[in-house]
Amino acid sequence: MKIKTENGVEEIKTIQFIKTEANFKIRLIDQRKLPFALKYFDANNVDEAILAISNMTVRGAPAIGATGLYALILGAQDMDKIDKINLQELRDKIVKARPTAKDLESFIDLLLSRLNESKLDLETLLELADEIVKDSEQECLEIGEQSKHLITEGMTLLTHCNAGALATVDWGTALAPMRLAKRDGVNFKVFVDETRPRLQGMLTAWELQHEEIEHNIITDNAAGFFMQQGKIDMVITGTDRVLRDGTVTNKIGTFEKAVVAKSFGIPFYIAMPWSTYDPDTVSAADIPIEYRNGNEVSHVKTPTGYERVSPEDSELLNPAFDITAPEFITGYITRDGILSQNQLQQYYEKRYK
Amino acid sequence: MKIKTENGVEEIKTIQFIKTEANFKIRLIDQRKLPFALKYFDANNVDEAILAISNMTVRGAPAIGATGLYALILGAQDMDKIDKINLQELRDKIVKARPTAKDLESFIDLLLSRLNESKLDLETLLELADEIVKDSEQECLEIGEQSKHLITEGMTLLTHCNAGALATVDWGTALAPMRLAKRDGVNFKVFVDETRPRLQGMLTAWELQHEEIEHNIITDNAAGFFMQQGKIDMVITGTDRVLRDGTVTNKIGTFEKAVVAKSFGIPFYIAMPWSTYDPDTVSAADIPIEYRNGNEVSHVKTPTGYERVSPEDSELLNPAFDITAPEFITGYITRDGILSQNQLQQYYEKRYK
Repeated sequence: MKIKTENGVEEIKTIQFIKTEANFKIRLIDQRKLPFALKYFDANNVDEAILAISNMTVRGAPAIGATGLYALILGAQDMDKIDKINLQELRDKIVKARPTAKDLESFIDLLLSRLNESKLDLETLLELADEIVKDSEQECLEIGEQSKHLITEGMTLLTHCNAGALATVDWGTALAPMRLAKRDGVNFKVFVDETRPRLQGMLTAWELQHEEIEHNIITDNAAGFFMQQGKIDMVITGTDRVLRDGTVTNKIGTFEKAVVAKSFGIPFYIAMPWSTYDPDTVSAADIPIEYRNGNEVSHVKTPTGYERVSPEDSELLNPAFDITAPEFITGYITRDGILSQNQLQQYYEKRYK
Repeated sequence: MKIKTENGVEEIKTIQFIKTEANFKIRLIDQRKLPFALKYFDANNVDEAILAISNMTVRGAPAIGATGLYALILGAQDMDKIDKINLQELRDKIVKARPTAKDLESFIDLLLSRLNESKLDLETLLELADEIVKDSEQECLEIGEQSKHLITEGMTLLTHCNAGALATVDWGTALAPMRLAKRDGVNFKVFVDETRPRLQGMLTAWELQHEEIEHNIITDNAAGFFMQQGKIDMVITGTDRVLRDGTVTNKIGTFEKAVVAKSFGIPFYIAMPWSTYDPDTVSAADIPIEYRNGNEVSHVKTPTGYERVSPEDSELLNPAFDITAPEFITGYITRDGILSQNQLQQYYEKRYK
């Protein structure tokens, strides 16, 4: 992603694996410090990498998956003997860092499934990890290429949460078409929901600043108002999971925006890497809804730490995700094109079976 | 309203006019300190009262109106001669403290319209002010009496923003039926939207704590999710203005909740004192939409002050209110009963013409 610095514009990635003669390490953009400061966190061993995943130094499904892969390399480096049993144990330890992050599991399991018994060495593992990480980045770029034409001159988009480069290795999912349209010279504006409770919209705003994409931060409450006023032409969000029938789980608040958008006929797109597709889950009733700690609601992140905003002693309820039925979704943006609900399974099978 | 203190339960009002032998003063609950601490602010003269209105020591339409009336008394006390010209000048000065607060103007103008030329003294002014303030409080109580039957055992309500005792002299509008149902022994729960950007939901939570009404603070994003999950039985909010046809202006976010509620057939009630009814405005297109300072979005109130939550340099857009059409509203709770859209004008005229 582009970063404006004092020295001009740099291109950086959310996750890098750094090999020096002395050691291996994972360099992560420290998302706990954003949007207030751009700092890096170096994980020098598997335990530091696991900590970075669990304490949300890195967040976003593909970004967590990529970090998990490189964590496996750091762990394998310390093994007396690299074998499948040791790797499986290490895999289990890493996956526990964020038990609900599907991509963490699926990225590592993909690597393990590609292992060739005869070449169980560090170099091969690193090649396989790099291959998966690069493909994840490439998939985001293709999501952008497949959908950038949706964004036309003078348009105003809405996005919710952060489905940007920070949540992936680079490019992002929902933000990929915006990056590419901007680089093609299209002028448009983005309304950025702040996305309480964790305010990931602020990360989106930070990314758009660096891409010089015009944007306005709005409260989550204001999205419906701007739709009613005819000021939003299209909505694009990411997703955490897409069920076989196209039902979407995404950051809390997505459902409200989708219902209001549909009532005004505003197109609502979901940008999805295939790793979020879950052909095994058929019914929304089978989706476990993650309730996170209420202190995400009672507190907010400021440049100096976390500050209380609610009165003490009130109960807090903090569902992290909600569920949006396919009837509210105009199309699913994949690396294989913008698909309809009915095409999802067919394209998934074409690619993976 | 009930306040739990170290010494037990006290009954207090948002606004009191205090007469001692030495002087007059207005004692206000200082809403800038809530929900973190209960402090009072004493306005000893008209300028201090005007400051309290403009800097939001007091907020909420009827509460501002009542403060404005007593500010007029403090001003009249200092007049060499109380006459209509001097009072009109004073009225203009007070109204400027919050130019968009309709009730500030209408409460004072009601007093001025009741003045009898032959009795222009401080005592008469105070009697008239007390009469209007008491009637405002009484109207809230009647709103509660007219609608408390809507709240039945085991129900879960949703409310947005603060339409409580803090926004009025006592009882509140949307919170009045909840107070009365609770005092009648009905057990129910309230989901309280935090109501970004100014987080007035935290004031509502604070009021419900003191009334010992079970409640959960949720993010604004979560309301739609809980409706979808079948966990919200009814919505009651207040309003800032109701047009002739029943179109409602209320705190930003009300519209989104109303659209989602309607999609699930969840009843959506508006609690309204008649001072918010505006029979002269016919079309939603004629409602001026107040955009407030973006620093309400970029910052949040904490126990120690205001802290930044957004990255610097992003543009911010902060519409304070939104517009909800009558098709989304199940009924209008007034002191005269729960009215349909078609009954509004008829009941208004019956009472005021």
